[in-house]
Amino acid sequence: MYNFKNDYAEGAHPSILERLTQTNLVQQPGYGEDKYGLQAKQIIKEKLGNKWASIHFVSGGTQANLLVIASLLRPHEAVISASSGHIFTNEAGAIEAIGHKVISVPTTDGKLTTADMESTLQSYSLKPHVVKPRLVYISNTTEMGTVYSKNELRDLYAQCKANDLLLFLDGARLGHALMAPGSDLLLEDVSRFTDVFYLGATKNGGLIGEAIIFNHQAIGSEFEYIMKQKGALLAKGRLLGIQFLCLFEGDLYMKLAQHANLMASKIAQAIEAEGYSFLTRPQSNQLFPIFPMPLIDQLLEKYQFYIWQQVDQNQAVVRLITSWATPEKIVDALIQDILRYKQ
Amino acid sequence: MYNFKNDYAEGAHPSILERLTQTNLVQQPGYGEDKYGLQAKQIIKEKLGNKWASIHFVSGGTQANLLVIASLLRPHEAVISASSGHIFTNEAGAIEAIGHKVISVPTTDGKLTTADMESTLQSYSLKPHVVKPRLVYISNTTEMGTVYSKNELRDLYAQCKANDLLLFLDGARLGHALMAPGSDLLLEDVSRFTDVFYLGATKNGGLIGEAIIFNHQAIGSEFEYIMKQKGALLAKGRLLGIQFLCLFEGDLYMKLAQHANLMASKIAQAIEAEGYSFLTRPQSNQLFPIFPMPLIDQLLEKYQFYIWQQVDQNQAVVRLITSWATPEKIVDALIQDILRYKQ
Amino acid sequence: MYNFKNDYAEGAHPSILERLTQTNLVQQPGYGEDKYGLQAKQIIKEKLGNKWASIHFVSGGTQANLLVIASLLRPHEAVISASSGHIFTNEAGAIEAIGHKVISVPTTDGKLTTADMESTLQSYSLKPHVVKPRLVYISNTTEMGTVYSKNELRDLYAQCKANDLLLFLDGARLGHALMAPGSDLLLEDVSRFTDVFYLGATKNGGLIGEAIIFNHQAIGSEFEYIMKQKGALLAKGRLLGIQFLCLFEGDLYMKLAQHANLMASKIAQAIEAEGYSFLTRPQSNQLFPIFPMPLIDQLLEKYQFYIWQQVDQNQAVVRLITSWATPEKIVDALIQDILRYKQ
Amino acid sequence: MYNFKNDYAEGAHPSILERLTQTNLVQQPGYGEDKYGLQAKQIIKEKLGNKWASIHFVSGGTQANLLVIASLLRPHEAVISASSGHIFTNEAGAIEAIGHKVISVPTTDGKLTTADMESTLQSYSLKPHVVKPRLVYISNTTEMGTVYSKNELRDLYAQCKANDLLLFLDGARLGHALMAPGSDLLLEDVSRFTDVFYLGATKNGGLIGEAIIFNHQAIGSEFEYIMKQKGALLAKGRLLGIQFLCLFEGDLYMKLAQHANLMASKIAQAIEAEGYSFLTRPQSNQLFPIFPMPLIDQLLEKYQFYIWQQVDQNQAVVRLITSWATPEKIVDALIQDILRYKQ
Repeated sequence: MYNFKNDYAEGAHPSILERLTQTNLVQQPGYGEDKYGLQAKQIIKEKLGNKWASIHFVSGGTQANLLVIASLLRPHEAVISASSGHIFTNEAGAIEAIGHKVISVPTTDGKLTTADMESTLQSYSLKPHVVKPRLVYISNTTEMGTVYSKNELRDLYAQCKANDLLLFLDGARLGHALMAPGSDLLLEDVSRFTDVFYLGATKNGGLIGEAIIFNHQAIGSEFEYIMKQKGALLAKGRLLGIQFLCLFEGDLYMKLAQHANLMASKIAQAIEAEGYSFLTRPQSNQLFPIFPMPLIDQLLEKYQFYIWQQVDQNQAVVRLITSWATPEKIVDALIQDILRYKQ
Repeated sequence: MYNFKNDYAEGAHPSILERLTQTNLVQQPGYGEDKYGLQAKQIIKEKLGNKWASIHFVSGGTQANLLVIASLLRPHEAVISASSGHIFTNEAGAIEAIGHKVISVPTTDGKLTTADMESTLQSYSLKPHVVKPRLVYISNTTEMGTVYSKNELRDLYAQCKANDLLLFLDGARLGHALMAPGSDLLLEDVSRFTDVFYLGATKNGGLIGEAIIFNHQAIGSEFEYIMKQKGALLAKGRLLGIQFLCLFEGDLYMKLAQHANLMASKIAQAIEAEGYSFLTRPQSNQLFPIFPMPLIDQLLEKYQFYIWQQVDQNQAVVRLITSWATPEKIVDALIQDILRYKQ
Repeated sequence: MYNFKNDYAEGAHPSILERLTQTNLVQQPGYGEDKYGLQAKQIIKEKLGNKWASIHFVSGGTQANLLVIASLLRPHEAVISASSGHIFTNEAGAIEAIGHKVISVPTTDGKLTTADMESTLQSYSLKPHVVKPRLVYISNTTEMGTVYSKNELRDLYAQCKANDLLLFLDGARLGHALMAPGSDLLLEDVSRFTDVFYLGATKNGGLIGEAIIFNHQAIGSEFEYIMKQKGALLAKGRLLGIQFLCLFEGDLYMKLAQHANLMASKIAQAIEAEGYSFLTRPQSNQLFPIFPMPLIDQLLEKYQFYIWQQVDQNQAVVRLITSWATPEKIVDALIQDILRYKQ
Repeated sequence: MYNFKNDYAEGAHPSILERLTQTNLVQQPGYGEDKYGLQAKQIIKEKLGNKWASIHFVSGGTQANLLVIASLLRPHEAVISASSGHIFTNEAGAIEAIGHKVISVPTTDGKLTTADMESTLQSYSLKPHVVKPRLVYISNTTEMGTVYSKNELRDLYAQCKANDLLLFLDGARLGHALMAPGSDLLLEDVSRFTDVFYLGATKNGGLIGEAIIFNHQAIGSEFEYIMKQKGALLAKGRLLGIQFLCLFEGDLYMKLAQHANLMASKIAQAIEAEGYSFLTRPQSNQLFPIFPMPLIDQLLEKYQFYIWQQVDQNQAVVRLITSWATPEKIVDALIQDILRYKQ
C-alpha cells in the first residue's frame, strides 16, 4: 500500500541524515546559536535579497503560525483567513488559544482576494464591539493546492498596507508554490510582498522544521522570548540549523519541491486525458480529482489517500499528494491503475 | 429625538433607586455576601423551582458570557453559536480572548436547531486537529428578536445531553422571551432545559446586572474564583443584590418586560396593517420592519434607530427597540408618523 | 457591631444617589458616550493639568489592573510589584490569567524603591529564558497604608524611563494618599510621574468605579476594545459617568478621603498615646496597630476588623480601616474602648 | 575549549542516528501514530509496571511543562514550585502565558518538602481572592543537581493526595536521578508516587524529546488536542518514536545517564579531596563547587562553564555539567588542571 495521503510519511532527505551524522559530536551552543544555523540564516537572507530579514527556525507549521501571530497582535486584534486556511480548520484552535479570533472568508479555491478583504473590513467596523482585523493570513500553496501569482500577492500586500494590516504567508509548502509550473513568483517577491512568512521543511525533505522570516525590522523584535515561552526554542537548535543548511546551501530545497510537483503533474495529465475533472486546477503537489466511486474503491486496494468530499452518490473528490520522496515507478503504476478502469 | 436604538438608554426603574437610597448606610459585607443579594438568590431559586441552582450576580452580558465559558471549558473545547450570536459578533473577541473558538452556524432567524447541531458536530470530527465542540450557546430572545418555544428548547437540550454538550442560554433579554405573546416557555423550563443561563437586568429595568444560574451541582463550582480573577466580583456587591431583590421579590421583572413587549407589539401591528413586512416575525421588544427609504428618512428626523441592513436601493430593514421605560405616548406618535407616510 | 474591616461596607455618598435619581429618565447613549461621563472626564483632565490624558471609567480595581496591563504588554513582558501588591496577593491570578508573570519584590512597608528595581532588573537579564520586565506596578496608598512622597515617585519614574519601563499606579485609595497629612504629592504630580494610574471611587464614596488615566498619547490607544473584550464596558456607562461627575465637579472626592484620614488619624494618635506601636507608620485610612490579645478580644465584641498577623502568643497586628462614612461618634467610642483596657 | 556548560552540546547517541537512517524511507502515519513510537510506548509502560499509564512524546521540557499544566488546571488554579524550579525561573513565563500563577517556595537545595507545602497552603486560603493551589511541580534531578529519595517522593505524594493536589515531576534529567549513586528510587516508584512525569531525552542522548507519562486514567484524557493546539504534535512523530525506541528497548537510557553521573562523580571526588566545598552535595551530573577566583580564571582558559554565583570577592560557585557524551579523557584533564592549581 503506497501512501498518497500526505507529504510527511517518510523521514528526511538522506543528505540531511548524513550531515547530522557527520557533525554529531561537534559541541555547539544551544538555543539557536549553533554555527550551522547561523550560516543557514545567512544563506537564506542572501537568497531573499533582503538584508533586513530576521530568521528563526521552529519545528512545525502550527507552532510557526501561533508564534508569529502571538508576537504581532494586541489582545483585541484579529486575523483574516480563507475559511479553508489551516489556522481556521486544522490547528485545534491554536490561534484562539493565544487569544485571537480568526475571521473566516469563504473562497472557492483557497485564495484570498482584495475584494474578500474589502468586504471583510466593512463587516468589522463597529468599533469597539467587534474585533479589529490586523493581520491577513494566506497559505501558498493553499490547502487546495492552488498558488498565488506575483500580481495577486503584490495586490494583496498593497491593500494590506493601505489598511494598516500585516500580511503573513504560511509557507508550509512554499517550495511547491515557487516551483509550480507556470508560476512567476520568486522567493525574493515573497520577501517583498509579505511582512512575514515561512519556508516549510517538514513537507519538503526535512525531519521537522520551518524557517520563519520577518521581512523588516519593524516587526519580529524579541521573537526568541516568544519562542521560548511557547516551548519552541529547541535546546539542540542544531537539529534545525543543520537541516536548513543542507536544504539551502545549494538548491536542494527547490529541487525536492520540483520533483514532487513533477510527479503530481504527471498524474494530473493522465487523469485529465481520461476525461476526469478536478475540484481545483492542478498546480502543485496536491491534486483533487473527481473520480467515480468504483474507481476509488479499486485504487484504495493499492493506495492510501483521502476521500475529500462526496460529490454525489456516484462520485467523490479525492486528494492525492506527492512528495520529494515519491518514486516515479509508483506514479506510473498509479496511472496504469487509473487508465485500466473501465467506465 | 426619542431613542428606539436600544433598551439601555435610561437609568433604572425608580423603585430600584429608592431601595438603594433606603439601604445606603446599612453596613454590609462585600463581595456578594450582602443580605440583600442572599435574599434575592433565595427568591430566584424558589421561582426556578430548582433547589440545586447556584446563582451569581455580575455586571453585564459580555462579562457573564466569558465567565461562564471560562469556568466550563478545557483549552481545546469550543462553543457552537448561531452566526448572529452576540458572542460571535459583538463582544470584541471576548471568548477567543479566554482561549476558545466560537464555531458559527448560519441561521435565518437567529435560532439554532437540532439539525444545525448535527451537521456542525459532523464537521468537527477530525480529532485532534480540530477543536472539540463542548458548549452550545443560544440567546433568548435572540439577536433577531425571535424566541424559542418550550419544545424547541427541550429538543436542543436533549440533543446536547446525547452528545455530551453543555447548553448555555444568554438571557440578556430573557424576561422579554418569557413574556412574549404566545410563548409557552416558563422560567422553570429554562432551569430544566439548560445547564446554565442568565437573567438580564441591564436591559430590563436595572442599572447593571445579570443573574447567572447554574442549574445543577456538576458545574459552576468555585465560580467566585473565576469572577474575582476576571474583575467581576464587585466589592459593593450590594449594588447588584438590591437590584435583583427589587426585581424579583414581586413580579416587577416580568411586568417590565411585558410592558416593553406590549409597546413593540402595538407598533408591529400598525406596521403590519400598513402592509410592510419584517425581516423576522415580531415576537418581543425588537422589531425589524422593512421600510421604504423615504419613510426611514422622515422617521429619522424625530427618532433614533439603526438601519440594520439595506434590502435594495429603495428599502432597508430598520431595528426598533422598546423598553420598560418606553412611554405609550411616544409609541402612539411613532405609529402616527408611520401611518402619515404616503407611498 | 461597627465594621472597621474595610472601606466599602456602605453604599455611596448620598449626593451620588440623588444625582442618579434626578437624571434617571434622561435618555443617554450607552457604552461610555453619556454626557455626564464626557463632562466628568473633561473636569478630571483639567484638574490633572494634562491635556494629553485619556480617561476611561470601569467598575473596580481588579478590572482596572487587568485591563491596563492587557493593553500595554506583549506576551513575554512581565510586571514588577511589591510582594504585598494587590495584583500579586489578592486578585486570584488576574494578571497571570491574561498571560503575564508578576515578579514580586519583598518590602517592609509596601513601597518599591529604586534599589528594589535595580536588583530586580539584574535578576531578569538572561534573555530569552526569563520574562522581560516591562511595567512597574505600585499602589498609593499601599496595601500597608503607607504613601509615596513626591520625590519618591519622581525618582521611581525617572528610573523607569531610564530602563524603558512603564510605571502604573493603582489608585484604589489615591484620594487617601493625596490627602494624607504631610503628603506633598499633588494630583498633577501623579499625572506627570506615572504613565498610567487610576482614581478609585469604590473605596471613596462611589457605588462602583475607578477612573483610569493614561497620561500620554503613546499608550492607551484602542483601550475601549480591551474594555469591551474583558466585559468592562458597561451598557449603562452613565452609572459611572454620573458618579465621577458628582465626585469631581467640586472637591467632594478629596473631602471624603480627608474625612477618612482624619478619623484614622484620631484613632492612631490615641493608640500611640497609649504606648502601642504599629506595623507601619499611620499615614492614611488604614492602621496596623499591634495590640495585646486580650484587648483584641474585647474590641472584637463591639467591632469588626481583621487580625492581620500574629506577632507572638501575646500580641497581634490588627487592621483598622476608616472611610468617608465612618461617624466620628463611633471613632470616639472605639478610642474609649481602647483607653479603658487595663494591662 | 571543552564545554561543561550543559548536557545538550552534542547531537544524539550514534545508535539513534543509525536507526533514523535505517528506517528513513519506510512510510509511516504521522502525528504520533508511527509503529516505532507505538512500540516505544509499550516498552516504557512495561518498564513502569503500570498498565494505566498513557504516554506522549513531545520535543522539549518547556513544552512538556506547559502542555501538562494546560491540560490539568482550571483558570483559577495555580502551581506550587520551588523558587529554583525551571518553570519559575527559566521558561520565559510559559506557565503564566497559559494563564496560571506559579507560587514559588524558597529552598536551599531545590527540593520541596511537606513542610513547605503545608505553609504554602496556609498562605493561600483566602478564597476567592487568592489563586487556588492545585498542582505541585518538582524537578528530579533538581536544578541544583540534588535528587529525591523514595521516601521523600512518597511523602510528598501522600500529602498531595491528602490536599487534593496533583504531583507533577519534571524529569528532564530523570535518568540522572534514577542512576544517582546511592539513590533508592526506581522508575516504577516515580510512576506510583506522582500523577504525571516525564522522561527527558534531550539531555540524555536524544536529539530532542521528552516522554510525558500520565500515571492514571483520571487525567491526561484528550491530551493530543492540547498537543496539537500548542504546536507540539509533530507531523513526523517518527522522529520522536524512533529515539525513544532506541533509548528504551534495551538499557541505553539508563547507561547514558550512568556515564554522565560517573564522570561527574570522578570530578567531584577530586574536588573534595582538594578541600573545596560545594553549594549542594554532588549527587548527579551537575556539580556546584566553590572555587577561588584565580582557579576559575585558569580553568576558563580551557573549559566553558557558568559562574553560578559570587560567594565573595575571592570565591564563586561554578556549575559543571557532564553528559552521556563527556569523554573520560577530558574529565581527567580537568581534574589535573584543578589539582595543578596552587593557592
